[in-house]
Amino acid sequence: MGRLGAQHAENIATKIPNAELVALCDMDTVKLKETAERLHVSKTFTDFDEMIACDDIDAVVIVSPSGLHTEQIEKALAKGKHVFSEKPLGTTVEQCIQAEKAVEKYSGKVFMLGFMRRFDDSYRYAKAKVDAGEIGNPILFRAYSQDPEKFIESSIAFAAHSGGAFLDMAVHDIDLARWFVKSEPESVYAIGGCYAHPEFGKYNDGDNVSCLMKFQNGAMGFLLAGRTAPHGYNIETEIIGTKGTLRIGSVPQKNLVEIMDSYGVRKECSENFLERFQQSYVEEMKEFVDCILKNRKPDVTVYDGRRVLEIANACKKSFETGELVKI
Amino acid sequence: MGRLGAQHAENIATKIPNAELVALCDMDTVKLKETAERLHVSKTFTDFDEMIACDDIDAVVIVSPSGLHTEQIEKALAKGKHVFSEKPLGTTVEQCIQAEKAVEKYSGKVFMLGFMRRFDDSYRYAKAKVDAGEIGNPILFRAYSQDPEKFIESSIAFAAHSGGAFLDMAVHDIDLARWFVKSEPESVYAIGGCYAHPEFGKYNDGDNVSCLMKFQNGAMGFLLAGRTAPHGYNIETEIIGTKGTLRIGSVPQKNLVEIMDSYGVRKECSENFLERFQQSYVEEMKEFVDCILKNRKPDVTVYDGRRVLEIANACKKSFETGELVKI
Amino acid sequence: MGRLGAQHAENIATKIPNAELVALCDMDTVKLKETAERLHVSKTFTDFDEMIACDDIDAVVIVSPSGLHTEQIEKALAKGKHVFSEKPLGTTVEQCIQAEKAVEKYSGKVFMLGFMRRFDDSYRYAKAKVDAGEIGNPILFRAYSQDPEKFIESSIAFAAHSGGAFLDMAVHDIDLARWFVKSEPESVYAIGGCYAHPEFGKYNDGDNVSCLMKFQNGAMGFLLAGRTAPHGYNIETEIIGTKGTLRIGSVPQKNLVEIMDSYGVRKECSENFLERFQQSYVEEMKEFVDCILKNRKPDVTVYDGRRVLEIANACKKSFETGELVKI
Amino acid sequence: MGRLGAQHAENIATKIPNAELVALCDMDTVKLKETAERLHVSKTFTDFDEMIACDDIDAVVIVSPSGLHTEQIEKALAKGKHVFSEKPLGTTVEQCIQAEKAVEKYSGKVFMLGFMRRFDDSYRYAKAKVDAGEIGNPILFRAYSQDPEKFIESSIAFAAHSGGAFLDMAVHDIDLARWFVKSEPESVYAIGGCYAHPEFGKYNDGDNVSCLMKFQNGAMGFLLAGRTAPHGYNIETEIIGTKGTLRIGSVPQKNLVEIMDSYGVRKECSENFLERFQQSYVEEMKEFVDCILKNRKPDVTVYDGRRVLEIANACKKSFETGELVKI
Repeated sequence: MGRLGAQHAENIATKIPNAELVALCDMDTVKLKETAERLHVSKTFTDFDEMIACDDIDAVVIVSPSGLHTEQIEKALAKGKHVFSEKPLGTTVEQCIQAEKAVEKYSGKVFMLGFMRRFDDSYRYAKAKVDAGEIGNPILFRAYSQDPEKFIESSIAFAAHSGGAFLDMAVHDIDLARWFVKSEPESVYAIGGCYAHPEFGKYNDGDNVSCLMKFQNGAMGFLLAGRTAPHGYNIETEIIGTKGTLRIGSVPQKNLVEIMDSYGVRKECSENFLERFQQSYVEEMKEFVDCILKNRKPDVTVYDGRRVLEIANACKKSFETGELVKI
Repeated sequence: MGRLGAQHAENIATKIPNAELVALCDMDTVKLKETAERLHVSKTFTDFDEMIACDDIDAVVIVSPSGLHTEQIEKALAKGKHVFSEKPLGTTVEQCIQAEKAVEKYSGKVFMLGFMRRFDDSYRYAKAKVDAGEIGNPILFRAYSQDPEKFIESSIAFAAHSGGAFLDMAVHDIDLARWFVKSEPESVYAIGGCYAHPEFGKYNDGDNVSCLMKFQNGAMGFLLAGRTAPHGYNIETEIIGTKGTLRIGSVPQKNLVEIMDSYGVRKECSENFLERFQQSYVEEMKEFVDCILKNRKPDVTVYDGRRVLEIANACKKSFETGELVKI
Repeated sequence: MGRLGAQHAENIATKIPNAELVALCDMDTVKLKETAERLHVSKTFTDFDEMIACDDIDAVVIVSPSGLHTEQIEKALAKGKHVFSEKPLGTTVEQCIQAEKAVEKYSGKVFMLGFMRRFDDSYRYAKAKVDAGEIGNPILFRAYSQDPEKFIESSIAFAAHSGGAFLDMAVHDIDLARWFVKSEPESVYAIGGCYAHPEFGKYNDGDNVSCLMKFQNGAMGFLLAGRTAPHGYNIETEIIGTKGTLRIGSVPQKNLVEIMDSYGVRKECSENFLERFQQSYVEEMKEFVDCILKNRKPDVTVYDGRRVLEIANACKKSFETGELVKI
Repeated sequence: MGRLGAQHAENIATKIPNAELVALCDMDTVKLKETAERLHVSKTFTDFDEMIACDDIDAVVIVSPSGLHTEQIEKALAKGKHVFSEKPLGTTVEQCIQAEKAVEKYSGKVFMLGFMRRFDDSYRYAKAKVDAGEIGNPILFRAYSQDPEKFIESSIAFAAHSGGAFLDMAVHDIDLARWFVKSEPESVYAIGGCYAHPEFGKYNDGDNVSCLMKFQNGAMGFLLAGRTAPHGYNIETEIIGTKGTLRIGSVPQKNLVEIMDSYGVRKECSENFLERFQQSYVEEMKEFVDCILKNRKPDVTVYDGRRVLEIANACKKSFETGELVKI
């Protein structure tokens, strides 16, 4: 339970009808106790295996460090639990294949990956329009994922373990691209660098990176992942089609307030992913619970997890070698 | 339980931590049964008095026709319930005074009026800025409340009983004006007419009306209430101050999607008050419940209800007489 | 030739085809000489009567202090010149009537008043839409004319002679209101005050004033004139109709640049009327010249000048007395 | 004199102080006569060589088919004329080198290339901010150049001779990229296709193409050129820097009118390059004339013409081969 884990816990406890928060697991006993009290949860664990041994737990939400995801997914499924896992599915393609096998083996259980952007109102609205043919065929998918400069310290601190901007940040946009474009990228060229913070160079990473992708159906994809946005948390997505263009979040506005003062006419911006996607985290969990109750399968599958990782790896390879990479 | 009543019920049942939806009351037994089943509520009533006689009910939410509010507020308080009432407090000043007396008599109970806009994220953000002095002293408060033309049939059907656009629609903005300006209007001039729908004329009402108010502290207030907006549900508020201006909802956008097509670059709009203020209804109920639990009093008081009615009445009088009205 | 006079001179000299700048007149001989040299004008005058005695001058552009307009219009017409006069037509209704008589007497000559906003691209575009019935019948005309706070010193210095915010500032919007609504106001209620600068109180004026008007055709009009805008020169106009709404300049943007930085997502604003209406001054002069060459009459007539003054006077009276004024 | 040639002629005749339109040259005698009469030009030619033989012509503006530019530039310079040439400098690098030699040989004459976007108010404003360091170091330059779908017929008709989208359309953005980023691209990957109009495929062209560039200073560049925009003429440019982001034209608005109707809240868009860049064509010509009068050299040099062509050729090569191209 990092910051996002606590948020998931609170959502389940207070905002998801038909779900009950039964247990919490964390190695930090202080935080564990504090959260359990705040959310009126009686069972707490410091050991994942002990938790999933409980019979009165139907489903498990995994928000652990990325390297542990696959193993925990497999264990929880084996214990007969439904499983929701935060992205990424795994840190290597081998891990992903392992997860795929587990999900296939325990096919009676619901497995869902946490690509929460798909559950944002605006993205869902845009997706419905695209699927209804309102913008014709997709020509270009463009996505920016920019973290605020003010969190740069923690980005740097995390850099050694993040896997780099493509694996850590761009995966959401890679997922969205495939979702909107309905095709897979076949080649990618990725560039970038350390424009403000040389620290990332140590890990073959950049503070801002981008890539251009060609999809099998001919569509183009351009992604930017950056860590130095001065204005806030900027998640912007555009789908240009033959009959129309949709832009989601082209102003990363905090709310509906517009300010007119000596700085001009302006909107203040979202500060972080929890502010921007607050409701999406609730909606994805509702979907997970609804799938369990209605014995349905979520749209986000275990295979999406592997595909996204493969594509992110191709981006990373292109970025590191300076060459075009065919996927 | 009209449409809003069902929404309140659902919110309490699924989105308000520390609250339990115990009972529902409606004269329509079909709807009552359907809603009770959907929300897993065991107790249902067709009689308000029977419901408030139940001992295991701590608080009551009143969403009945306006003329019944005062009486039900008084009865519920007398039975020891905390009371949340939808606006208006009453339909006459006498009723409001009666409600005030009841609230004063049962001062140990929480009473709250449903001016939900105060609980909208954007309004709260704006209010905090105003209170922090960021825009200096208020010069002009401007507010538009425009219902979509597509609901005009139901507006016309309701016209005989609505009390007119000032009492029915402008009350939210009158409340906001007093909240932001921190002063009371002392004179008002109101005009308007039937620009598209002569049907409103029968009831001395207009399909669009407006008024200009002077506040005791010198601030100006301009309000527009209309029923013919072709673009959707348009709730826009502006506070011009000596150091800055804040606008809330100057584009009544449905979400963060921007469309570029043969109609230009555009945003689609909110369709109705439930879409626009969905979260506000949750937040105000959270506040009501929190006040009960922490033995606090809400900011929205019974006196706000009376003041708003008096001001709306003054607007109505000016509109009907064509003269300036001192309050 | 104040600042605006020099601009008119430069426009005629360099941007108006079929017009030649023949002479300049100003009592400030230093400025006169400098401008004449810059614009390659051979004739200069310090006396208006001497200038209009010249036979090789076809038309005169009057940009003198307001109190002199009527007299100079009359004299120039009498000398057989076409006349363009800056607003206002006169400072009293008597003066306006005098100007009307002169224009009627010399009806072979072109007379035009400088309501330049009618020649702004955006206003013209909006007007064409309104006239084509695209927004149905007008319900509300709303206009803001806000000068930047940073020019407050000169506003205060000019306060004794400006005639007040309605006569000095709101006249443009009064003209626009009549132009868009195609009706005359029949009653007005005006309020306002000194919210930041008590200096205006000395002259029965305010730093921000507003009024609500009822037009003979039932339309409503709300005008705000202010001198304390922190964000720049804010000229915003809205026409709400039964089928649509048009807003002109709802963001008083300087240009097409959008800035994303620590202040949010923002646009910088126009600084003053010359920046905002630069091209309108050119277009109105083109129209004046074209009317002369084609023996046409401009849409802006001498009667517009008088009506606007009468309405502004009614606003002023309401502001000063606190009462509703019938026009 | 195509459409743009006639515009240049009109601008020089009516909007450029200190310039006189002396002669016109076109092979279409009907149009030649009509334009000459309209603009009061006495001399007309159907032969370029005859025109530049005239002694009373100081400067020549070349708006002929691209393949003729270099030759005409050389000839006009040789006759002692100052030369303004529309883009491109030439259609091959060899032609560009020939032009460079001519410009170097006649170095006493002013030579200027028509990259008019640099003279647009908004671009100039943005450039000043970038140069002043207000957005820090450039990270990403993104540019869209999208022609309206409604001109697709003429795009198709022109496809055989246009040189393709990179040479025909993207050259303006290539110029802007170098101008803003102050570095040269060193590698490029270009993709695209025929998403709506297979006709372009015949010429190894696409109706929408894009490329990702890496600059020598590390900055990234992403360009899109498209011919199928349903909303109008969309020229959008973004410069993301380490301290801020600037966007120019993110809404390709026709003017300051905002419409609220059944399609939502919207702005209508610019229809074509003459509408969007009307004033830029005037400003660039003013600069050309001013350079002549003051014996200055323009910022846009003959070398910019060659560099832009080399880069566009690299884009084209990458697009055609599907491979990364080092420049």
